[in-house]
Amino acid sequence: MTSLTTSRTETDSFGPIDVPGDSYWGAQTQRSIQNFPFGPRETMPAEIVHALGFVKQAAARVNARIGGLDAELAEAIQQAAGEVAAGTHDDQFPLVIWQTGSGTQSNMNANEVIAGRANEILTGNRGGKSPVHPNDHVNKGQSSNDSFPTAMHVAAARAVDGRLLPALQRMHRRLAAQAEAWDRIVKIGRTHLQDATPLTLGQEFSGYAAQIEDAIERVRGVLPRVLRLAQGGTAVGTGLNAPKGFADAFAEEVARLTKLPFTSAPNKFEALASHDTLVELSGVLNVIAVSLTKIANDIRLLGSGPRCGLGELKLPENEPGSSIMPGKVNPTQAEMLTMVAAQVMGNHTAVTIGGLQGHMELNVFKPLIGANVLRSIDLLATGMESFTERTLDGLEPDERRISDLMNRSLMLVTALAPEIGYDNAANIAKHAHKKGLTLKEAGLDLGLVDEATFDRVVKPETMLGR
Amino acid sequence: MTSLTTSRTETDSFGPIDVPGDSYWGAQTQRSIQNFPFGPRETMPAEIVHALGFVKQAAARVNARIGGLDAELAEAIQQAAGEVAAGTHDDQFPLVIWQTGSGTQSNMNANEVIAGRANEILTGNRGGKSPVHPNDHVNKGQSSNDSFPTAMHVAAARAVDGRLLPALQRMHRRLAAQAEAWDRIVKIGRTHLQDATPLTLGQEFSGYAAQIEDAIERVRGVLPRVLRLAQGGTAVGTGLNAPKGFADAFAEEVARLTKLPFTSAPNKFEALASHDTLVELSGVLNVIAVSLTKIANDIRLLGSGPRCGLGELKLPENEPGSSIMPGKVNPTQAEMLTMVAAQVMGNHTAVTIGGLQGHMELNVFKPLIGANVLRSIDLLATGMESFTERTLDGLEPDERRISDLMNRSLMLVTALAPEIGYDNAANIAKHAHKKGLTLKEAGLDLGLVDEATFDRVVKPETMLGR
Amino acid sequence: MTSLTTSRTETDSFGPIDVPGDSYWGAQTQRSIQNFPFGPRETMPAEIVHALGFVKQAAARVNARIGGLDAELAEAIQQAAGEVAAGTHDDQFPLVIWQTGSGTQSNMNANEVIAGRANEILTGNRGGKSPVHPNDHVNKGQSSNDSFPTAMHVAAARAVDGRLLPALQRMHRRLAAQAEAWDRIVKIGRTHLQDATPLTLGQEFSGYAAQIEDAIERVRGVLPRVLRLAQGGTAVGTGLNAPKGFADAFAEEVARLTKLPFTSAPNKFEALASHDTLVELSGVLNVIAVSLTKIANDIRLLGSGPRCGLGELKLPENEPGSSIMPGKVNPTQAEMLTMVAAQVMGNHTAVTIGGLQGHMELNVFKPLIGANVLRSIDLLATGMESFTERTLDGLEPDERRISDLMNRSLMLVTALAPEIGYDNAANIAKHAHKKGLTLKEAGLDLGLVDEATFDRVVKPETMLGR
Amino acid sequence: MTSLTTSRTETDSFGPIDVPGDSYWGAQTQRSIQNFPFGPRETMPAEIVHALGFVKQAAARVNARIGGLDAELAEAIQQAAGEVAAGTHDDQFPLVIWQTGSGTQSNMNANEVIAGRANEILTGNRGGKSPVHPNDHVNKGQSSNDSFPTAMHVAAARAVDGRLLPALQRMHRRLAAQAEAWDRIVKIGRTHLQDATPLTLGQEFSGYAAQIEDAIERVRGVLPRVLRLAQGGTAVGTGLNAPKGFADAFAEEVARLTKLPFTSAPNKFEALASHDTLVELSGVLNVIAVSLTKIANDIRLLGSGPRCGLGELKLPENEPGSSIMPGKVNPTQAEMLTMVAAQVMGNHTAVTIGGLQGHMELNVFKPLIGANVLRSIDLLATGMESFTERTLDGLEPDERRISDLMNRSLMLVTALAPEIGYDNAANIAKHAHKKGLTLKEAGLDLGLVDEATFDRVVKPETMLGR
Repeated sequence: MTSLTTSRTETDSFGPIDVPGDSYWGAQTQRSIQNFPFGPRETMPAEIVHALGFVKQAAARVNARIGGLDAELAEAIQQAAGEVAAGTHDDQFPLVIWQTGSGTQSNMNANEVIAGRANEILTGNRGGKSPVHPNDHVNKGQSSNDSFPTAMHVAAARAVDGRLLPALQRMHRRLAAQAEAWDRIVKIGRTHLQDATPLTLGQEFSGYAAQIEDAIERVRGVLPRVLRLAQGGTAVGTGLNAPKGFADAFAEEVARLTKLPFTSAPNKFEALASHDTLVELSGVLNVIAVSLTKIANDIRLLGSGPRCGLGELKLPENEPGSSIMPGKVNPTQAEMLTMVAAQVMGNHTAVTIGGLQGHMELNVFKPLIGANVLRSIDLLATGMESFTERTLDGLEPDERRISDLMNRSLMLVTALAPEIGYDNAANIAKHAHKKGLTLKEAGLDLGLVDEATFDRVVKPETMLGR
Repeated sequence: MTSLTTSRTETDSFGPIDVPGDSYWGAQTQRSIQNFPFGPRETMPAEIVHALGFVKQAAARVNARIGGLDAELAEAIQQAAGEVAAGTHDDQFPLVIWQTGSGTQSNMNANEVIAGRANEILTGNRGGKSPVHPNDHVNKGQSSNDSFPTAMHVAAARAVDGRLLPALQRMHRRLAAQAEAWDRIVKIGRTHLQDATPLTLGQEFSGYAAQIEDAIERVRGVLPRVLRLAQGGTAVGTGLNAPKGFADAFAEEVARLTKLPFTSAPNKFEALASHDTLVELSGVLNVIAVSLTKIANDIRLLGSGPRCGLGELKLPENEPGSSIMPGKVNPTQAEMLTMVAAQVMGNHTAVTIGGLQGHMELNVFKPLIGANVLRSIDLLATGMESFTERTLDGLEPDERRISDLMNRSLMLVTALAPEIGYDNAANIAKHAHKKGLTLKEAGLDLGLVDEATFDRVVKPETMLGR
Repeated sequence: MTSLTTSRTETDSFGPIDVPGDSYWGAQTQRSIQNFPFGPRETMPAEIVHALGFVKQAAARVNARIGGLDAELAEAIQQAAGEVAAGTHDDQFPLVIWQTGSGTQSNMNANEVIAGRANEILTGNRGGKSPVHPNDHVNKGQSSNDSFPTAMHVAAARAVDGRLLPALQRMHRRLAAQAEAWDRIVKIGRTHLQDATPLTLGQEFSGYAAQIEDAIERVRGVLPRVLRLAQGGTAVGTGLNAPKGFADAFAEEVARLTKLPFTSAPNKFEALASHDTLVELSGVLNVIAVSLTKIANDIRLLGSGPRCGLGELKLPENEPGSSIMPGKVNPTQAEMLTMVAAQVMGNHTAVTIGGLQGHMELNVFKPLIGANVLRSIDLLATGMESFTERTLDGLEPDERRISDLMNRSLMLVTALAPEIGYDNAANIAKHAHKKGLTLKEAGLDLGLVDEATFDRVVKPETMLGR
Repeated sequence: MTSLTTSRTETDSFGPIDVPGDSYWGAQTQRSIQNFPFGPRETMPAEIVHALGFVKQAAARVNARIGGLDAELAEAIQQAAGEVAAGTHDDQFPLVIWQTGSGTQSNMNANEVIAGRANEILTGNRGGKSPVHPNDHVNKGQSSNDSFPTAMHVAAARAVDGRLLPALQRMHRRLAAQAEAWDRIVKIGRTHLQDATPLTLGQEFSGYAAQIEDAIERVRGVLPRVLRLAQGGTAVGTGLNAPKGFADAFAEEVARLTKLPFTSAPNKFEALASHDTLVELSGVLNVIAVSLTKIANDIRLLGSGPRCGLGELKLPENEPGSSIMPGKVNPTQAEMLTMVAAQVMGNHTAVTIGGLQGHMELNVFKPLIGANVLRSIDLLATGMESFTERTLDGLEPDERRISDLMNRSLMLVTALAPEIGYDNAANIAKHAHKKGLTLKEAGLDLGLVDEATFDRVVKPETMLGR
């Protein structure tokens, strides 16, 4: 953070207020710091700060072109906003999520820092309102009510594109490769957590791969709506004070800067007053969390042991499990991933509750919604990357154990029925269950089948539906 | 329900059990009735029963063609299954949602009732297992593990197509018509629930229309995945015991019967072990609930009064509000709709929690997931239809009140600033606020503007961004 | 339901309306039937109807004593209301949950049916408003705004007392008995789903018993607040039109009728405008759902098998699992219980969302909140009773399997360290893990311990912390 | 954070690893940093770090007394642990929430830092394992499986006692004072957001005060269970390796250090394997969030305006609303508080989902549960403090507006009915509604009442139920 040893005075319509001397921000940012005394863990996510940088950069370009903004000022604003977008000034954004529900104060934080930095570029003096004014120039043709939701969508789309999709794709590639690699390893199936007919380990993993493939499809399905921007609606959606054509020109400009195909939202009243699309995106993140929980739970179950669990998979060992007991590998990455998933589901509830409470022309749960969607994306992406790298990549089937369980199963008796009759087959299974024998032992013991017949008929690999 | 005065005996591998004499069901249904003693409010939704009818009808056709099922039996099964699909035998499905998590017992209920009815068709005697056997013939080539999730998807797709989309479309048409009809009625905007710059009532309603238009887009986006059917996976996804080609032929047959473009799920392991797509659909229903809450809340706020609220809208009166106080119209349809929305959000949590707990080859929260998705669709569809018909259709703007509030507003002072200077404009607003005057009164009182100028300049209809 | 073949005319301030001839209800009930066309699954829970019976019965008694209600009318009202409380007229309450958010229509349904029945008692003619009038006499000194939340609390308290607590107590007794009975059966512990140090099966079950014991404590902790009644607040909490002393006298009377220690809510404004206490009760039901999920999941895991799972518990067989495979017992009761739990968690979200949306003097999500709390109690109580009777009561440890797993475990090597040194002990474990031997076999194989020492030292029963 | 310019080598059973030279932590902490690459926003809450300090301090004291721990080592451990408890070493705890689900790595972080600091105290050299060993001495008689949940409960109880209850009490005092101060200000009541019979502003605020009073009661009701500590259960609940009497002695020692009446949990198996009590506490926080949403929403509605809303309350102005429009005060503190409440409700879902997924002897969602409960407490406490100070403390009724709305209401006609007859009264109301008159104007206009009678009879202050 900035040094507090010296200070300078900034003003707003409330009057003068001291700000740290080396900060770029102004009076409204300072007032928000004091009015919402939450701790540093609760600051507005950096992704939204960066997105505000893109918003102000694009607006300056459009304003220079069609809004009558002085070219020199526009150039300085662009440069300063570009620095904000690049993360250079993250420490100049001290405001927390829990502020006004329109995000006005974070929008003003951006306006003030960009003006303060542009003034430094132009005059050598940091801060202030001249020659570049936070409202009149940086915020020109905009309102918090359209800039902040625009930043939320820009941040969400960039996070989806840059973090979530790559993590999903990497995980999918790994699972698909395992589905192929392990397609000959026949194992016991389990339904109701009870022994069932066989399948291959590859088939089991193909189900996981399909879940992640669908996740990618789901994310791509919602993306077109995430790419629609509120900018141009200004205060209530009418676009009062924005020059004609501003909305479309702005969307094109942001698309150019971010290399993502943003468009202008077809209805600006909806874009300010509701955040249905972010609730929808959160719903898709919720599905991904559900999928990941299923996969991580299966892997933790299949890796349970080393002696008293299912033990079909050997998990890579990332840290000491137990100093004296070899083979005790705690599924810590699976635990991390399922915890992350639970958080995403909780965030989804928060987003839903924020989304449903809009009133008239403005939903004032914007920072809550934006912060939760971005945290969920970050948690899922980091969680999947780590899980893929530290668990999936090193996963190994315990083929002996898999085969042992497979052959111990009573489900295979089904294959004998056509050969020796249903009743005899059932008797073999009952005998095996009662005496704790394998099916083969039971069959031979009862004299109901000979070894050659058994070996010829009871072949799990023929029960795979191929 | 059926008469209990006489009974007959049915059997399963547990032995004989008495069933009501005039019922079509058999032993497994009867055992489930006794093992899960929940009340009649908790029965499996009729939509799933009907979908099981379609499943069994389609399976019989495919089995006759490629599965070696005797043509006469297949014909009787088809007829009986068609009756189940049409709702003729709803009273033969007494089982509750809270049973085995695979839905096996409801699948057997369908198998038994269809066999029992087919036997009646063929022999004149109701029930039993001959000549049509519930498992060997009706369930041929199937398992509960694929039939039940198939029925869940068939039921969900039919409900979306037949109930949800029409209700959304009707509501959208009404809102879009109001957006157009009221596009000249200028009113005060409200952000943070505080007075803001003006917009038209039509613009406000265009935001609601856009929300519902997006809802339709969202539902259509998820539908292709809902149309994918698990059938053909049998017990664990391998398709063991289903004839080659069964899955695709089945999907085509169901598509023909229901006139919906069902397809066979590309990965059957995923289709049995996860219900991600229904979690996703539930997430879309959750967004719709969020949208409806926003719209209904706005209408209830705008209709508050008659004297001490906002009073911009006059709500149709559907029932007595107060016997002595004219104008007291309780927004009962809005209350119904927001309650319904809250239930849908709760159901979404239940579906999420069911979805995340699948184990290995089978998710055993199937009835929970299916029942909640279907209830949510029914609640939303009925709620929207009723709200559209009984509130939106009869809604009327109180133009005098709207205009009165509009003119009382201090926000319009903004328009004077270019004419008389910012400071004078602000002084007029402050004077009006302090003395409780209109802006015009305040301006004339202070001598800062003349009437002609005021009337020429302060025109809300020029502040609409057109 | 009632016959619709004949009808009679009833009136309200909207005018005349036809009602079924043999119904007791009147115009306002009939109007609600037509205005809220949801299906029969969505009717107001019978528990609330019965509670309204108690409310009206108690009010009539108090009104006769201090409210100036004619004694003969009061007597007829009491009798009719008593019949409603006893469930005699359940078919006279066709209204659905999704109506006005104050529950006014269900309150009027009760007023009309009780008046209609009282008139029948007094005159022989069913229905109507004379001599007993639904508003002037049955609803005397009351408003829907206090009667309906009173009925919600009466219904909830009765359901907690009569259904939930007995089911918890029965389940607790069983688990506590098993904790004691199985206190000598030493088994492998599992943390992170991985093998850990031993405990007894009784100790494991003592944890479950403690969860249910705490559940009882939690329910009892919230009960005093549930027992506080809104009655006496009338329309907005001021008690306008209720005679002095009505609130306290009413609470005493309801307490006498229901044998539960109801009191009058200390603040009636809170009691109408918020339902915090029902949100709190729902939160306690949510904890119970969490506890039950843990217990049912453990039992399903411990009962997994018969050959390829953990197999430490043998589950009672309540229905056919598989016709050919003995030992395949699906944990259907555990599946039912965990599905029920997920529903309760979903209902809790719905209740929370309803609870947060109260406005000014009235929360208008009352039917939603009441219906969900009552459904959750019913589901939990029925679910626990069934699970206790059909799974816990018949549960049996597979002592051979438990002992086998216990002895196979590598965790026991810990006990050898003090005797033969840490390094040697670790070597034995590593050797056993690598070669698939028991610890004893590995120790003898390596010559690091003799059989007598091993048998003396490696005793799981000394690792139980007693 | 610590300088990374120099490093030293630490070891664990995985081998050597470099750690920053000036850090106190060791190998296991370092490995966790690398294995769970989440950002700095995701670190384990400081409250849990401090609680681990208390846990280790208390354990050292008990170990010195009954566990055979060398007195000099115990003294150094105590001192170092005390520093951790006091927050001196917060920068030494870099680990994130998303790690192993048992919290083992954070427990080891505490063990390593305390050992590293104790070694520095004893030898002048930072870090290492001698003379004080992280496991053998700092963790003596403990396991992560009991220490971490103990820290969760210690942290939660301290946060409830030190943050939540004071914030609730301060808010309650303010609301109760306002209830008293404003008890003569008669205003229109609103039910269904529609005009209703009057009450006083003080009565309205007494409802809010009652909600907060109940909140305090709820928190106190759950506290006894939060005060129960898992310590003494060690790895699986049996207490293996903890000296006899450790659990009780430890609880007493922690109680002494924290001045809170902690006790030893009666069942340690439950205390490790479930976190029902924290789910319960989260449920109480959820209720508080519901209450706060209701209160903040009411205040935002009553303060809406300045001209076109309800305008009964004047909100304090904490920052510029609009530069040109006086009176535009955005309810930013209410917006902050309702966003915070939505987050708490979301956190509650996360805690519930974590709570339901425990397996066998250990719930491995501990960090998720602990972090969410603590964040919820912090958000609620800070939010309430800020809202009380910056909104409630400066709230002022607009008595003129309140009186104006009150007198404009048509509800007061009720009072005329006994005097001039029901029909005449209703006619006056209808006439007033139709013509937009006050009741008095309408009555005089129709000649149905004279001014003296009207003024004598229509007195809102007699309609308050006193």
